[in-house]
Amino acid sequence: MAKKMLAAIKKEATAGAELVETDIPTPNSDEVLIKVKACSICGTDKHIYTWDAWAASRIKPPMIFGHECCGEVIEVGASVKNIAVGDYISAETHIPCRHCYQCKTGNMHLCNNLVILGVDRDGIFAEYATIPEICCWKNDKSMPIEIASIQEPFGNAVYTVMESNVSAKRIAIVGDGPIAAFACGIAKAMGAAYIYNLGMMPFNLDICKKMGAQVSINVFKEKDYRQRIIDETNGGVDVVLDMAGNKPAVDDGFAILRSTGTYTSFGLAPAPFEFDMANNIVFKGANIIGINGRKMFETWYQLKNILDYKLVDPNPVISHVMPFKDFIKAMEMAVSNDVPTSKIILTMPQ
Amino acid sequence: MAKKMLAAIKKEATAGAELVETDIPTPNSDEVLIKVKACSICGTDKHIYTWDAWAASRIKPPMIFGHECCGEVIEVGASVKNIAVGDYISAETHIPCRHCYQCKTGNMHLCNNLVILGVDRDGIFAEYATIPEICCWKNDKSMPIEIASIQEPFGNAVYTVMESNVSAKRIAIVGDGPIAAFACGIAKAMGAAYIYNLGMMPFNLDICKKMGAQVSINVFKEKDYRQRIIDETNGGVDVVLDMAGNKPAVDDGFAILRSTGTYTSFGLAPAPFEFDMANNIVFKGANIIGINGRKMFETWYQLKNILDYKLVDPNPVISHVMPFKDFIKAMEMAVSNDVPTSKIILTMPQ
Amino acid sequence: MAKKMLAAIKKEATAGAELVETDIPTPNSDEVLIKVKACSICGTDKHIYTWDAWAASRIKPPMIFGHECCGEVIEVGASVKNIAVGDYISAETHIPCRHCYQCKTGNMHLCNNLVILGVDRDGIFAEYATIPEICCWKNDKSMPIEIASIQEPFGNAVYTVMESNVSAKRIAIVGDGPIAAFACGIAKAMGAAYIYNLGMMPFNLDICKKMGAQVSINVFKEKDYRQRIIDETNGGVDVVLDMAGNKPAVDDGFAILRSTGTYTSFGLAPAPFEFDMANNIVFKGANIIGINGRKMFETWYQLKNILDYKLVDPNPVISHVMPFKDFIKAMEMAVSNDVPTSKIILTMPQ
Amino acid sequence: MAKKMLAAIKKEATAGAELVETDIPTPNSDEVLIKVKACSICGTDKHIYTWDAWAASRIKPPMIFGHECCGEVIEVGASVKNIAVGDYISAETHIPCRHCYQCKTGNMHLCNNLVILGVDRDGIFAEYATIPEICCWKNDKSMPIEIASIQEPFGNAVYTVMESNVSAKRIAIVGDGPIAAFACGIAKAMGAAYIYNLGMMPFNLDICKKMGAQVSINVFKEKDYRQRIIDETNGGVDVVLDMAGNKPAVDDGFAILRSTGTYTSFGLAPAPFEFDMANNIVFKGANIIGINGRKMFETWYQLKNILDYKLVDPNPVISHVMPFKDFIKAMEMAVSNDVPTSKIILTMPQ
Repeated sequence: MAKKMLAAIKKEATAGAELVETDIPTPNSDEVLIKVKACSICGTDKHIYTWDAWAASRIKPPMIFGHECCGEVIEVGASVKNIAVGDYISAETHIPCRHCYQCKTGNMHLCNNLVILGVDRDGIFAEYATIPEICCWKNDKSMPIEIASIQEPFGNAVYTVMESNVSAKRIAIVGDGPIAAFACGIAKAMGAAYIYNLGMMPFNLDICKKMGAQVSINVFKEKDYRQRIIDETNGGVDVVLDMAGNKPAVDDGFAILRSTGTYTSFGLAPAPFEFDMANNIVFKGANIIGINGRKMFETWYQLKNILDYKLVDPNPVISHVMPFKDFIKAMEMAVSNDVPTSKIILTMPQ
Repeated sequence: MAKKMLAAIKKEATAGAELVETDIPTPNSDEVLIKVKACSICGTDKHIYTWDAWAASRIKPPMIFGHECCGEVIEVGASVKNIAVGDYISAETHIPCRHCYQCKTGNMHLCNNLVILGVDRDGIFAEYATIPEICCWKNDKSMPIEIASIQEPFGNAVYTVMESNVSAKRIAIVGDGPIAAFACGIAKAMGAAYIYNLGMMPFNLDICKKMGAQVSINVFKEKDYRQRIIDETNGGVDVVLDMAGNKPAVDDGFAILRSTGTYTSFGLAPAPFEFDMANNIVFKGANIIGINGRKMFETWYQLKNILDYKLVDPNPVISHVMPFKDFIKAMEMAVSNDVPTSKIILTMPQ
Repeated sequence: MAKKMLAAIKKEATAGAELVETDIPTPNSDEVLIKVKACSICGTDKHIYTWDAWAASRIKPPMIFGHECCGEVIEVGASVKNIAVGDYISAETHIPCRHCYQCKTGNMHLCNNLVILGVDRDGIFAEYATIPEICCWKNDKSMPIEIASIQEPFGNAVYTVMESNVSAKRIAIVGDGPIAAFACGIAKAMGAAYIYNLGMMPFNLDICKKMGAQVSINVFKEKDYRQRIIDETNGGVDVVLDMAGNKPAVDDGFAILRSTGTYTSFGLAPAPFEFDMANNIVFKGANIIGINGRKMFETWYQLKNILDYKLVDPNPVISHVMPFKDFIKAMEMAVSNDVPTSKIILTMPQ
Repeated sequence: MAKKMLAAIKKEATAGAELVETDIPTPNSDEVLIKVKACSICGTDKHIYTWDAWAASRIKPPMIFGHECCGEVIEVGASVKNIAVGDYISAETHIPCRHCYQCKTGNMHLCNNLVILGVDRDGIFAEYATIPEICCWKNDKSMPIEIASIQEPFGNAVYTVMESNVSAKRIAIVGDGPIAAFACGIAKAMGAAYIYNLGMMPFNLDICKKMGAQVSINVFKEKDYRQRIIDETNGGVDVVLDMAGNKPAVDDGFAILRSTGTYTSFGLAPAPFEFDMANNIVFKGANIIGINGRKMFETWYQLKNILDYKLVDPNPVISHVMPFKDFIKAMEMAVSNDVPTSKIILTMPQ
C-alpha cells in the first residue's frame, strides 16, 4: 500500500488551502481507513477556505478539512465489528462521544462532546481518510460515487423535511443552495402540495424548480411576494423550511407563515439579529424546530429508502464533477461568483 | 319547486330497497336543503341493502339511506350562517352534537352522541336531501360531481394515511376495496417508499396497483407472501394500513409488521376474533391507531389540497357511473359478484 | 331586573378609567347575559388602564374592559342551546368566528378573525356582561367565585405546561407574575422533578415558591445563576417556560436550556429584540412552542380536573380580594409599585 | 479474589432451582464483573422457576437466572471505557446487538437480536455476575441497595406511564403486581388526576393504594364496576395502563376506556384470546401502545429524576427483604399463595 497521499490541507490561519502530499493516516482501534472515491464541497468548507470569523474561532490548522465523502474500506481497527475491508461507505460527520446524555437518549447527532469530521479533526479532502466505525454508513456497491458522496447534505434536507410534516401542505422553502434544492425534491416527494421557493440566484432557483418547487421567487427582483403568498394560501403557508437563516430570510419566513404553522430552522445566521418573538411565535401559536446534522441513523435509513426507491433524483443539484487534483480550482469556483455553482463533486481516479 | 322527489327507501326490516316518490324534506333551522347532483355507494349501504346483522341492529326503517353525495344548496335554515343558496357542497356524514367532551376537544367525528347520515337519520339516496350546516363542505364549482361525491370515502383514506406517517417508509395496505385503493394512491403521493397491497379480487388489486401499489398480492393465490415481505423488508414493513379488518387480514398485517411499527386500523370485522396481543403489540412495541370517519375538518382541508394540486387522481377507483334511476340495478351489482365493482357513482340529470 | 349597572369604562384614549353607571347590555341571539359575581385584573387590563403603545393601537374607547370573570346566567339569546338561566359560568375570552381554517381545524383559540373580550368588544368589569355561548364554561355551583374568576389565566398556565411535557424533567420557569406562579404549581403537580424560578420581585418569587418552585432566583440580585443552573443540571434544564418574554428573560431562558430541549414561549415582549437563532435554536436542536390563549376546550377540561381533584391550589396567587366598587383603587394598586400584588380579585355583593 | 460463588442455577428442564457453588465468571472485553449487592425476583423468574410453557420454550438449562440487581464493579473488560472498578451499578437487562435497524434508530430495547439477561444467557442470581458495559447504569453511592435493585422493573412502570400522557387525566391501572404498584405511584406523581386500580389480591391492592391509587377495585368481589367507572368519568377513563394482559383484564380495560383514549399494553397474556378490534379500537378511535423493556436510556434518566427528587417512594412495593442464602425459600414464597408478596429483594452480606 502507498504511504503517501494527496490531501487538501489548511496550513495556516488564513485564507486558502494547499493540495500537498502527506502521510496516509492510521486508523485508531475504533476507526476504519477508507480510500476516498469521491468527496464534495459544503458551505462549511467555504467558510474554512475563506477563513471567516467562524472558521478563525473554530478551526485549528494545520488540518485536512472536508467531510462529505464516500470510499472503500481498506483497513479496520482492532475493535471494529460491523464494518469490513471492502465495504463501500459514506461518512456521517457528527462523531459522538456515545456516553453523554444526548448520546444515551437517541440524540447522538447533538452529542454534548460533538467532534465534527473535517472541522474538529482531520477530514476527507484527501485520497485516504480515517472514519470512526460509528460514523460508517454502508452503501450498496451499485450506488454512483457522486450520489454516495452527497448523502450527508442530502440527509440534512431529509431530516429537515421529515421533522416538518409537509404532507398535503403548502410550504415555503427559503434558500436556494444545494440543501434547499434537495429539500425541494424531498418535500415534493413526501407529498408537499405546493412549494414556494425563495432565493436569490437564478441558477440556483432553477435547480430548486427542477427538483420540485412550483414557484420560484427571486427576492432581489420580485416585489410584494409576501402578500402574494399570503393571498394565494389564504393566510400563509403551513410550513416554512428555513435553509438560509439570515435575517431577511427569517423575516420572510415568519411573514408568510400562517398561525399554528411550523417553522423549521436549518440555516445559520453569522450573527444575532432583531427578531419579533411575540408576533412571530407567541401570537401565531407557531412551532419552531431547530435542525442540526442528521438523526443517527434514522435519517440515513430514510434517505436510503428515498434513494433506493427513486423517490427523489438528486442529480440536478450536482452542478460540477471534477477530478480531485483540481481541488483548489473547484474551491475557488465555489467561493467566487464568477461561475454559478450548486453542489461540486471531486472524484478520485477509480 | 317540485314537492315530490325520487328516493331510495329501506321500507322494511328485510333485504332490498325501493326507489319511490316521496316528499321533499324541509330543512331544520340549522340545516340546508340540497338538490343532489351525485351520490355513491359505500360498503355500509350494502350492509343496509342486504340487511345483515349489523343493519338489523342499527337501522330503523322506513328510511332513506346513503350518505356519500354532492349537491347544490337550494334552501337554507333560519340560523344557517356560512352556507348560501347556490353553494355546491359535499357532505361530511358524521353529525356531531357539538357539546360533548369529544366535540369540545377537537374530535367531533367521534362525538359521544354521533348521528350518521343515512344510518341514524334519512340520507341522500334521493333527488333532494337535508344536510346540517356543520356537515357542509363547500366545493369549487369546477369540481366534477363524481369526484365531489367520493370525497367522503376518499377522506377516510386520507385520515388513515395521514395518521400513519408513511413518508419514506415501506408499508402494506391490506384490503382492496375503494378506500384501500384510495389509500394506495394517497400513501404513494405522501412519499411511501414501497407499497405492498394484499387483497383478494384481481379486478380490485389492479385498481390498487393503478393507484400506486408496487406489489399486488392475491392472498387466495399466493403462498409464503408473509415471509417474502419480511425478507424483502429485512424484518417487516414499517406501517400497515388495515382497510379490511377481518381476522385473516389482521393476522397478515401483524405478521408482516416490524417491531416498533405502526398498525392503523380502519377496516371492521363483523365479530370479535382470536388475537395475540402479547406478540402483536407488546413484544413488538407496536402502536395501533383506530380510525373512524374523518377529522372535522382537518381531513377535508388535506383532501382539498390533495385533489386541488392533483397529488392523487381518484378516477381509477370509480368503476361505474350510472344514472340514479338505475339505483336498484347498481345496488344489486354492488352486492353480487357477477360484475366486479369498485366505487359506483349515481348521477342525477344535471 | 335593574336597567342600569356599575361598569369600569375606558372613556377616552388616555390613561385611567371610570367607574360609572351605564345600561345593562342585551345579549345577541347567540349570547347570554350574566350577573357578574367576580372579576380579576390581568396584565392586559393594566396596559389598557395605563394606555401604553399597544393599548393605543388596539383599544377603541369608549368601552368596558376586563375579561377574567365568573357569573350567573340570567338571560339567554334565542339560539342558545346548551347554557340555561341559572348556570354558573366562567368566560373563555377568545371569541372565535367558527368558520375560518383555524376554527375548523381545532384551533379556535387562534381564530383568524379573533375577537377578544374586553379588548375588541365590551368586557366584564361591570355588574352585568354578555358572553357568547361558545365562550361559556359551566362551573360547579360549589366553586368559590375567586377561583372561578381566575380560571382563564390559570388556563394559560395549564396550556403552557401541558404543551411542554415537564414530567420527570428539570425545568425553569422564567417570570414571577400570576401566570408564572400558576405554572409553578401546575408544573409541580404534573411531575416536574425540579423547578428553577427566575424573577425580579421578592413578593412574587415567594408566591412562586409556595406554588411549587424549588429554587427562586432574583435575577436582579444573584450572580452567575446561569452557570449555577447549568452545573446543577449537568448541561441545562430540559424545559424552559417563558412567562416573561422580554429580552433578558429570553436570553436567560436559552442560556440555561440544554440541547434538544423545549422552550415554551408565552410571555410577550413589547418590541422585537436581538436574538441568536443559530445558537439558541439550530445548534441546540431545540423546539420552540408559541402559546396564546387556551385550547378550546381541551385546556378547560384539564384545568377542571386539576382543580376538581385538588392537584393544585391556586389560592396563594390571589394576593387581594376587594369589592368591585373599589375597582379604581385596585387598578391603581395593580399598576403602581407601592404595594406588591399578584392576582387581584374584585367581587360583587353576593 | 474468591474463585467460587453461590449462584441460583436452573439445572434441568423442570420445576425448581438449586443454590450451589460455581465458578465466578470472567467478563468479556465489553463486559464488567460485578459483586452483586442485591437482586430481586421478577414474574419472569417465577415462570422459569415453575417451568411453565413459556420457560420450556425459551430457557436452555443449565443456567443462572435472574436479572434485577445492583452491584459493585470489581473488574472491567479490555474495551470497557465508561465504567470503572468501584462503580456502583444496576443492570439494564435488554442486551442489544447495537447494529440492527432498531438499535440504530433509538430502539435498542427492542433490538432485533435481543438477548435478555438471565433468560437468554446467565443472569444475576449469584454473588458475582458479568454485565455488558452497554447495560450498566451508574448509581449514586448513597442509593440503598434495595432501591437500586428494583430500578429495572420500576423502569418498566416509568416507561409505561411516560408513553401514556397521564397528566391531568383520569386513568385506570389494571393489575396489582409490583409493576402495577409502581405505575400507580408514578402516574400519581406525573399528575394523573384520579386513578382507578383494578386487581384481585387485597394485599396487592392495598399496596397500589398506598402508592397512589384513589380507588381500589377487587374484580373478584365487586360488581358493576365497569359501569361505575363509566358513570363517574362521564364516559370512561382517558387512559388505561394494562399491567396484567390477560383476557378479563383487557376486556375490563377497553370497556372503561373512552373514545379517543389511550390504552397502553404492558402485561402479557399466556395465549391469544378473543378480542373485539372493531369496537375496542376502530369505533373508539383509540390508540394502543405496546411497551416492552425500558428506553435505553431515556427511561433510566427519567427514573433517576423520579427517585433523586423523591417524586415517588417505591418502598411500599418491597414486601420482603431476605438474605440471598434464603433464595429458594424466597422463590417458593413468590410462587405460592401462602404468603402474599409483592417485590421480594435478596441481599448479599454487605
